[in-house]
Amino acid sequence: MKRLGRVEEPMSKLKVAAFSISLDGFGAGVEQDLKNPLGVRGQELHSWFFPTETFKKMTGQGSGSVGVDNDFAVKSFENVGAWIMGRNMFGPVRGPWPDDSWKGWWGDTPPYHAPVFVLTHYPRPDLVMEGGTTFHFVTDGPEAALARAKDAARGKDVRIGGGVSVIRQYLESSRIDEMHLAVSPVLLGEGENLFAGLDLHKLGYAPSTTAPGEGALHVMIRRR
Amino acid sequence: MKRLGRVEEPMSKLKVAAFSISLDGFGAGVEQDLKNPLGVRGQELHSWFFPTETFKKMTGQGSGSVGVDNDFAVKSFENVGAWIMGRNMFGPVRGPWPDDSWKGWWGDTPPYHAPVFVLTHYPRPDLVMEGGTTFHFVTDGPEAALARAKDAARGKDVRIGGGVSVIRQYLESSRIDEMHLAVSPVLLGEGENLFAGLDLHKLGYAPSTTAPGEGALHVMIRRR
Repeated sequence: MKRLGRVEEPMSKLKVAAFSISLDGFGAGVEQDLKNPLGVRGQELHSWFFPTETFKKMTGQGSGSVGVDNDFAVKSFENVGAWIMGRNMFGPVRGPWPDDSWKGWWGDTPPYHAPVFVLTHYPRPDLVMEGGTTFHFVTDGPEAALARAKDAARGKDVRIGGGVSVIRQYLESSRIDEMHLAVSPVLLGEGENLFAGLDLHKLGYAPSTTAPGEGALHVMIRRR
Repeated sequence: MKRLGRVEEPMSKLKVAAFSISLDGFGAGVEQDLKNPLGVRGQELHSWFFPTETFKKMTGQGSGSVGVDNDFAVKSFENVGAWIMGRNMFGPVRGPWPDDSWKGWWGDTPPYHAPVFVLTHYPRPDLVMEGGTTFHFVTDGPEAALARAKDAARGKDVRIGGGVSVIRQYLESSRIDEMHLAVSPVLLGEGENLFAGLDLHKLGYAPSTTAPGEGALHVMIRRR
């Protein structure tokens, strides 16, 4: 029997949301570069997202689908006070920043509308964009980035945008409270695997709910 | 536009059907033994199958569910003229057969009702069971087993029962025509992984259809 009373949820969750993987577990393809921000065939992972009202609005394309896939897309942006992402998600530049010209994939108004903490080994000044997004470049590791993001989120959730290696780091330290995966009916065959060598069961995670969408299977994974 | 006329399908398909995997790609758990025929937590992979009418009938338990999961369970037994399985699926005995006392996990009347070709390194006489199942022990490899099974199937399909390593061998040689996977909302964390190190895209496979069942996501994978 459930106890009556308030359900205790963490005040501010660290969450992954609307993160797409293939049937064989890849969250990105190989050879990520300017032409293939998500790696070769990486776009296919997100085919559930592109027709949604949420994506269409984000990209100024008019109306889109409003089914289950869109429900999850909407939810993924709710109550997000700050973001964390890896440097490879921020851009294709590797090694020290040659200059400050790379400002992300997303134009002048990135779809984050909140502070974004970019994990990198190379310092760079804060980058203030339009629409409320500021990129902060964090060089002292995932724990420091998380502390700064929690602080910046002011009680709201911190969302990890990706990529795979950043999510894996926070899973390995069991820091993630909730992870929404969209499993796409695609076989990538190679790329960055979310699960390989990571025992999520031993790390304390289990699927809580699943919901079939129009273009992907949505799975919520939480700490048991 | 589709051409009119007969759709050309292989006369006799080599297929995998109703094969359950976890979200993280495992088709069986670790430490397979008498107590855990499917390895530790392997049973959880099949939780979609146990409530179905098909499973209930197989095991003399009365009526069961008749939804999408059951449709796939029914389909998995249709038009099967012969089976192939690995020696570890046949039983927990390893190395040379000490005697002929192990007769499989399934009692006197196994649920195959057809010739079953068991891949093993150790010869053993044919084992005739009740209900039409005969176990043949094949020591000259997967290609020989396939040839014998095709012959025995007399124009019907050959179904690979498992386990993971047998399926992987036939995938590596692109011999499998059709693979129905049931993706269960479970994280095993460790065990026998169906996908690891296997590039199904390069091997010519792609998902054709997906269908959400009550307890698993059903995915059909075919050669492109």
